[in-house]
Amino acid sequence: MNMEPIVALDCMGGDGGPATVLAGAATARERYPRLRFRLFGDHARIAPELERLRGLAAAADVVHTDGEVLATDKPSHALRRGRDSSMGRAIMEVREGRAHVAVSAGNTGALMAMAKLMLRTQEGIDRPALAALLPTAKADVVMLDLGANVESSAENLVQFAVMGAAFARIVLGLKRPRVALLNIGEEELKGTEELRDAAAMLRQAGGDLPLQFVGFAEGDKLVRGDLDVVVSDGFSGNVALKAAEGTARLVVELLGRAFRSTLLSQLGFLLASKQLKSLRAHVDPNNHNGAVFLGLGGLVVKSHGGANAKGLANAIGVAHDLVVDDIGGRIAHDMRFFQAHRTLGAPASAPPRSGDEAAA
Amino acid sequence: MNMEPIVALDCMGGDGGPATVLAGAATARERYPRLRFRLFGDHARIAPELERLRGLAAAADVVHTDGEVLATDKPSHALRRGRDSSMGRAIMEVREGRAHVAVSAGNTGALMAMAKLMLRTQEGIDRPALAALLPTAKADVVMLDLGANVESSAENLVQFAVMGAAFARIVLGLKRPRVALLNIGEEELKGTEELRDAAAMLRQAGGDLPLQFVGFAEGDKLVRGDLDVVVSDGFSGNVALKAAEGTARLVVELLGRAFRSTLLSQLGFLLASKQLKSLRAHVDPNNHNGAVFLGLGGLVVKSHGGANAKGLANAIGVAHDLVVDDIGGRIAHDMRFFQAHRTLGAPASAPPRSGDEAAA
Repeated sequence: MNMEPIVALDCMGGDGGPATVLAGAATARERYPRLRFRLFGDHARIAPELERLRGLAAAADVVHTDGEVLATDKPSHALRRGRDSSMGRAIMEVREGRAHVAVSAGNTGALMAMAKLMLRTQEGIDRPALAALLPTAKADVVMLDLGANVESSAENLVQFAVMGAAFARIVLGLKRPRVALLNIGEEELKGTEELRDAAAMLRQAGGDLPLQFVGFAEGDKLVRGDLDVVVSDGFSGNVALKAAEGTARLVVELLGRAFRSTLLSQLGFLLASKQLKSLRAHVDPNNHNGAVFLGLGGLVVKSHGGANAKGLANAIGVAHDLVVDDIGGRIAHDMRFFQAHRTLGAPASAPPRSGDEAAA
Repeated sequence: MNMEPIVALDCMGGDGGPATVLAGAATARERYPRLRFRLFGDHARIAPELERLRGLAAAADVVHTDGEVLATDKPSHALRRGRDSSMGRAIMEVREGRAHVAVSAGNTGALMAMAKLMLRTQEGIDRPALAALLPTAKADVVMLDLGANVESSAENLVQFAVMGAAFARIVLGLKRPRVALLNIGEEELKGTEELRDAAAMLRQAGGDLPLQFVGFAEGDKLVRGDLDVVVSDGFSGNVALKAAEGTARLVVELLGRAFRSTLLSQLGFLLASKQLKSLRAHVDPNNHNGAVFLGLGGLVVKSHGGANAKGLANAIGVAHDLVVDDIGGRIAHDMRFFQAHRTLGAPASAPPRSGDEAAA
């Protein structure tokens, strides 16, 4: 595509502040020279950074904002006061069509609450979902929902599956991602009624959608690398993601302790340090950065609050790809096809994407 | 206490078969010389093992059973055909008062289904919960429910908290365990209505129960070591546990790969091998073995199916401690106190345990 993706960037979010965010944007722009930025935040803190980042400065406009959503703010507070913050203005920029995507490393709850309110859901989707990438033994896996909702109906879960598959097709470059529903067993009768109904719907339609529905998967299958998309309600998805992240951090920490404990083990660490670095890189969240709110009337990408410049650049890279490959259009297309297929109750083949409205 | 705890042992469960189970029993008996066993399973396979394990043989009776619950059997199948299996007979032995506790390394779903049906729930408890120990950065943490239920009411969650605390007092040797509810945020308004109601009840009564209720905890806090008991519905608990186990396995596997990749890194591994072994031991499930069905009218301990003899011995050790410290009595006592306290709606102090019925 020949477009120039415009990113509305919240420069005040994240632990590293404007310096980290802008360094990340500069790196992203080197990778994707067509990217343009609208930078929201305190002009006095942004300007000196741009002085040093000439390439970025040439592709960016600064919009000064006074307000700031703090990491400790409650979503309700952000909703009342956040409209004029760097975060709120970045989202508004997407809503008003002046940017294709908003990127923020700020407070997740506040970002979600404001994005839901300002952008509403897109055609065919009842509830948005938060999706992210998780490292596994092989390629990354897409997980959703990670907490945009507390409870999810069977319909919601099916929509998450369609959205997650569209996301995986773009960011993982897959044709027909393998999609599973997170459950506490693999047999058809396991889990909640919502899960069983969602599985039945996906089993019926899955063959005709651009995804392979492979059934239920237990929590330990998340990181094994045999799945591309794992779908869950927002509660158990959030719990699973955080349990996995916490455990990875724990094991790496214990490993560090083990190596520091004696002189001999320190020497051992030195000899294996190159390999251990690559292990650390494999589980480093910065290399898998960029959670996305899917299903909204506009695109919002969330970076880890603790991300470094490289992590920010990766999140902006994800934003770039989702804009260029039109994730919203893909989701709308697949949902229209799914609904048409279901209403007719007859097997059908997925129409080519160019056929657009024909399937509705 | 001067009692001799009697263990009804399912010798046919687990990947290692009777040889592993009996070796584990022999080790447990060396640690706890008062233990006595009733061994259920195929006499022809048990007898030769006992030939070599004289200490155990002197403290055990063998009850021959023909049937066997397979790891692949569905719970419904076990319910129909499992009564005469080694697993079913071991549970029945507890129900009929000929043993204090049943221990099995067999199929979890089948064990749970049969135990629920044969033992029903104990006084004050509406639903049983599956509890287990998880390694953390510091001491182990008790998690429950791990899948005995799919959904849980606020009342169920409160009962799980009381049961988990009783378990932690015995197996972790704590006076007032720190108890948290698993949630997707730490603020009071987060999560489901069931969680918020359970938190309100525990906040009201917690100070008078033998536990400290510390509020909500997110998934990454599970393994940080600052909590003693983490309470959840069976769905999200199961998902969290398996995500944590899967991730620990993944990181250890990646670590192995990293060390094997070059000659230099192999040498590094050799130099640090003692410390790495202790890391492996820290996360080895065999060192944290012994899941327990709490809240039933009799005690059932579940060993990991893949446990080795040491793992089995640990599971039997847990069974021993729960019998000697009368977990069922503690739970009944605490629930009576909780109910009395709630009905009166007034603050009260926990009566001493010897006061038994006085609080009801």
